[in-house]
Amino acid sequence: MIKAGIVGGTGYTGVELLRLLAQHPQVELKSITSRKEAGTPVAAMFPSLRGRVGLAFTQPGAQALRGCDVVFFATPNGVAMGEARAILDSGARLIDLSADFRLRDLAEWERWYKLKHAAPELVAEAVYGLPELNREKIRGARLVANPGCYPTATQLGFLPLVEAGLVDLDHLIADAKSGVSGAGRKAELHLSFSEASDNFMAYNVPGHRHWPEIRQGLAQAAGREVGLVFIPHLAPLIRGIHATLYSRVTREGDFQALFEKRYAGEPFVDVMPAGSHPDTRSVRAANVCRIALHRPPQRSGRSDTLVVLAVIDNLVKGAAGQAVQNMNLMFGLPEAAGLGQLPVVP
Amino acid sequence: MIKAGIVGGTGYTGVELLRLLAQHPQVELKSITSRKEAGTPVAAMFPSLRGRVGLAFTQPGAQALRGCDVVFFATPNGVAMGEARAILDSGARLIDLSADFRLRDLAEWERWYKLKHAAPELVAEAVYGLPELNREKIRGARLVANPGCYPTATQLGFLPLVEAGLVDLDHLIADAKSGVSGAGRKAELHLSFSEASDNFMAYNVPGHRHWPEIRQGLAQAAGREVGLVFIPHLAPLIRGIHATLYSRVTREGDFQALFEKRYAGEPFVDVMPAGSHPDTRSVRAANVCRIALHRPPQRSGRSDTLVVLAVIDNLVKGAAGQAVQNMNLMFGLPEAAGLGQLPVVP
Amino acid sequence: MIKAGIVGGTGYTGVELLRLLAQHPQVELKSITSRKEAGTPVAAMFPSLRGRVGLAFTQPGAQALRGCDVVFFATPNGVAMGEARAILDSGARLIDLSADFRLRDLAEWERWYKLKHAAPELVAEAVYGLPELNREKIRGARLVANPGCYPTATQLGFLPLVEAGLVDLDHLIADAKSGVSGAGRKAELHLSFSEASDNFMAYNVPGHRHWPEIRQGLAQAAGREVGLVFIPHLAPLIRGIHATLYSRVTREGDFQALFEKRYAGEPFVDVMPAGSHPDTRSVRAANVCRIALHRPPQRSGRSDTLVVLAVIDNLVKGAAGQAVQNMNLMFGLPEAAGLGQLPVVP
Amino acid sequence: MIKAGIVGGTGYTGVELLRLLAQHPQVELKSITSRKEAGTPVAAMFPSLRGRVGLAFTQPGAQALRGCDVVFFATPNGVAMGEARAILDSGARLIDLSADFRLRDLAEWERWYKLKHAAPELVAEAVYGLPELNREKIRGARLVANPGCYPTATQLGFLPLVEAGLVDLDHLIADAKSGVSGAGRKAELHLSFSEASDNFMAYNVPGHRHWPEIRQGLAQAAGREVGLVFIPHLAPLIRGIHATLYSRVTREGDFQALFEKRYAGEPFVDVMPAGSHPDTRSVRAANVCRIALHRPPQRSGRSDTLVVLAVIDNLVKGAAGQAVQNMNLMFGLPEAAGLGQLPVVP
Repeated sequence: MIKAGIVGGTGYTGVELLRLLAQHPQVELKSITSRKEAGTPVAAMFPSLRGRVGLAFTQPGAQALRGCDVVFFATPNGVAMGEARAILDSGARLIDLSADFRLRDLAEWERWYKLKHAAPELVAEAVYGLPELNREKIRGARLVANPGCYPTATQLGFLPLVEAGLVDLDHLIADAKSGVSGAGRKAELHLSFSEASDNFMAYNVPGHRHWPEIRQGLAQAAGREVGLVFIPHLAPLIRGIHATLYSRVTREGDFQALFEKRYAGEPFVDVMPAGSHPDTRSVRAANVCRIALHRPPQRSGRSDTLVVLAVIDNLVKGAAGQAVQNMNLMFGLPEAAGLGQLPVVP
Repeated sequence: MIKAGIVGGTGYTGVELLRLLAQHPQVELKSITSRKEAGTPVAAMFPSLRGRVGLAFTQPGAQALRGCDVVFFATPNGVAMGEARAILDSGARLIDLSADFRLRDLAEWERWYKLKHAAPELVAEAVYGLPELNREKIRGARLVANPGCYPTATQLGFLPLVEAGLVDLDHLIADAKSGVSGAGRKAELHLSFSEASDNFMAYNVPGHRHWPEIRQGLAQAAGREVGLVFIPHLAPLIRGIHATLYSRVTREGDFQALFEKRYAGEPFVDVMPAGSHPDTRSVRAANVCRIALHRPPQRSGRSDTLVVLAVIDNLVKGAAGQAVQNMNLMFGLPEAAGLGQLPVVP
Repeated sequence: MIKAGIVGGTGYTGVELLRLLAQHPQVELKSITSRKEAGTPVAAMFPSLRGRVGLAFTQPGAQALRGCDVVFFATPNGVAMGEARAILDSGARLIDLSADFRLRDLAEWERWYKLKHAAPELVAEAVYGLPELNREKIRGARLVANPGCYPTATQLGFLPLVEAGLVDLDHLIADAKSGVSGAGRKAELHLSFSEASDNFMAYNVPGHRHWPEIRQGLAQAAGREVGLVFIPHLAPLIRGIHATLYSRVTREGDFQALFEKRYAGEPFVDVMPAGSHPDTRSVRAANVCRIALHRPPQRSGRSDTLVVLAVIDNLVKGAAGQAVQNMNLMFGLPEAAGLGQLPVVP
Repeated sequence: MIKAGIVGGTGYTGVELLRLLAQHPQVELKSITSRKEAGTPVAAMFPSLRGRVGLAFTQPGAQALRGCDVVFFATPNGVAMGEARAILDSGARLIDLSADFRLRDLAEWERWYKLKHAAPELVAEAVYGLPELNREKIRGARLVANPGCYPTATQLGFLPLVEAGLVDLDHLIADAKSGVSGAGRKAELHLSFSEASDNFMAYNVPGHRHWPEIRQGLAQAAGREVGLVFIPHLAPLIRGIHATLYSRVTREGDFQALFEKRYAGEPFVDVMPAGSHPDTRSVRAANVCRIALHRPPQRSGRSDTLVVLAVIDNLVKGAAGQAVQNMNLMFGLPEAAGLGQLPVVP
């Protein structure tokens, strides 16, 4: 049994980790920390876990996590970078669900996150935890930077095109829609039901922190810088990301075959039949990315735009599920262990 | 007082017309027809109108509409084209909220609507009722083709750019999101709460009937054919369209000033300050289109993509409200008469 | 024109007052205060009011409200009681949408609101602003305590029964469901979309502040103390209260006729045909309470329980609309002036 | 491995059975029938099952189900009664999720379901599948009538009180709220998103088919007829039932202890600490009923009303999950086998 600890377990990625790890056959939940809730039984805060998770939150600190084989950070940005060194020194591996180790370019990271980075040397060591891109490196990693939710859907949707170099890499467009849980478990007015329900809007159009992360991943795949317009939207759903991805075809090919081949064998990427319209609920609460390809009409007799639709559950394949997938890889378990939950429909 | 009739008043555009016309100071609701509900008091079907609308539905037919100055068709596609001639011959004017008279190219219309057109000569006469594009023609029209909901938001968002010729007209992209009421008042499984709630999806990506309508309007404005990729999405809101419009800048300019000038004096188009994020609820239940412009980051030091955000209430500026606006123009009333309702927030 | 001021206009009752007063033909919005937002244009905070409300928020204080004929307090509990005296001394009338003047029993008020009351003498003067109960007193009032949302629906549903003494007054039950906007415009976790959406729960079952308010009103109508179990629930809608009211019949009668007679002539209470099921959307955004009566099956051949269903929009008939109705009465205007908006359906 | 068949697998209880059985370690899904969809792969209709359920729908009939150890009927009312005999004769056991075998009083059944019963002798044999009431009988049953969703929540909430005889059995009140999926996977206008969203209403107040079912179960527990007022409401959530249950205390006792003792050892009933407010999402997608007790204020110094709050997921503990629980009992498996999914929160 792998002994797992969670730092900062009171947010949505934290409780989702709890849901998944509590059902994982090879994991023992050993401790979960929260400065604010130390002493509170986890199930008192999350009644959905009553009878199934017996732990109480404990004070953060090395003591709390002693003996863990793996520690998940489900903390706000800026926390993991300060504590990672001690965790790693204790012999545990670390999977960070925050953004602290996602960007390799420190200056870029500091510009977007408005913090001085506390552990530059670990940035260099960290592996970006998108298994479909970096599986082998993840297996050997001590420190995995778990991708953001938008970056997961967007990169998985663009990867085959970018790797094959069939589209204009200077003009990618990602029009992405996210459910409200993507913003975290927060008391903020604009996230309140009365504000966010029966409403739809774009936000952070002038710049979103996931933009450099996506560009970094696509650049790695392309072997060159890419141009990307990324427009996030807030949709009135709890979970789910729908990325509508536009690219201009520069060289024709059998795109459907390209995607099917690229993701053949991937346990958590589902390339649907051409012409499908994946919906977010078809992945609700499950660790799957579903993808479909389209060539929509554009003008009489001519069309050079390829549209990729990609959906994930932002809390699962976009966060906690992918973290468990990374853990499985890091510890040599079957990649799908503990991730067999079927989507909840309706 | 203008005597108004409504044909097919049991759908959402019909009941929205009732809501608006019942509060219009210069309109007398004279009759409303429905084959299926003839004899039923309108307020029995729509309790929201109890005490305010005393009419009952009557059998359709010329008799029912005798004496009307204006007749609104809120019928499924294919009905108005068969009855328009008789209405016009009776001396009434006609505003068709269906698609029967929207496309000037008959072959195109028949291809998309899979019907033989019953009144080709009236297609030639009909005026496309987007006041911001065709105001003067609408004033003199006997027959107005009220625009579709997506086409209203999309055209208003693209018009200034297309008229000024500052963007690549072969590669416009409209990523549009609609609330569920846009599909009409229908018993269809995919529109049910259990299917559509907490869910998000694209639909009709291979081809949507509003695509040729938008292209026709933009071509008129551009003086040439345009290329447009149009991807509609179903969002879990009742009312509201959010169009995210992408175009590639071919000639730089002060786009904010361009839009402000183009829509100066327009009573129902609101160009918001640069950098705004209009949300659909800010126009809920009101006859307004709000627009905001952005130049999002794209790649280091270069960006040639302009993003326009445009929101409307699909049942008001996208249907019944625009129809009343057209009626006001046709009858020489103040353009905003009866359209003063403020958006309902929250 | 009546000059109106609003104190604390940044909450939902405040913006709803703005929506209604901006459309009121005999009201001039003179000032609106907010300590926190002083200087901010109202339409910058609420884009739905762009182009229609030109005011900016101003610092609270007597200066800001000088010259007002009426001042609305849309403030948190405990504010109005401290400022009411100065407002009244300036010659203006005051309508308080908070709870400061609702309970005549000071000790009871202090127990529930956990504050020392700052203006006991005004409590004695204040008139409880439920027009259907206190219309004549409201006409002459300087200070009106606008009822709470639950109390409005519950009292209107029980009043005819309690006045007629046909039911067991010791065992009334109000099972009430409220939309989330009833909790105000607040950044609180349990009100967030991710928590409140797709969810249903009772809350404050051990005691809710509206319980003594309802009991006070019903006691006034009954001429004796009443026993009431009041269970509020949070439902995932923005606006709307649905009260399901249970009482045990002690003397049979024609209850439908009783209600119809009691509310004949009431402009904002709609007694629906027996057997109706009023839904909250049928009053959405409108100043109406709809009521329907039922005698459901109970056991073979016997039934002594009467069920009353009552729905309102908590922000209109349950708050801002009722406040405008009270203003109309206080100033001798037609009671329905400015309250003609039809419900927004769908 | 138990070989399982499903008759009528295209509704919500059917797809939920698929979700649960596909994850059940001791079940092999052998066949699933649908007259209308015969030949269609299950995963084509429900993409959430892609890659996990390889079956296609087959024509109904004995052939299709040959070799099954257990057959679940997830059909509309009136189907199972015609086919049950043949299934049982084939040696399989049968769990009927419809209402065909729930009421022991045939005349009552025929009155409420407006059909002539086709298998009266099986009504006598059938066991009502509420494990907390009939566990031992279920173990030995060939034919189990799986309870309705409202009846499950309502009976579990009232059972301890009724068995102990501490409340007035002539005046029970169940104010129940259901998510929309409780109405089934149907194309009906009143269930559409545009109608049911942002709305709340009571329905079927004059009589709901679950009323006699609840009364039957409570009468069995009480040993006498009970009086019950049952008011169902439609709430804008997908899944979830919240029952607010009122009873008048006739004999005081430690109700909290009573409930805890009654349900000690029950794997799927969770008696929460006194004063809790269970919410529907705390059981979302899981086979649990959570219960909390309250004694709310009623009038000065006196209170004789006990309030029980009970929540379930209508598709799990209220349908498919309970069916699997019954199957486990009938086949001697651990009662919780395959039912370990944790609730999905948020």
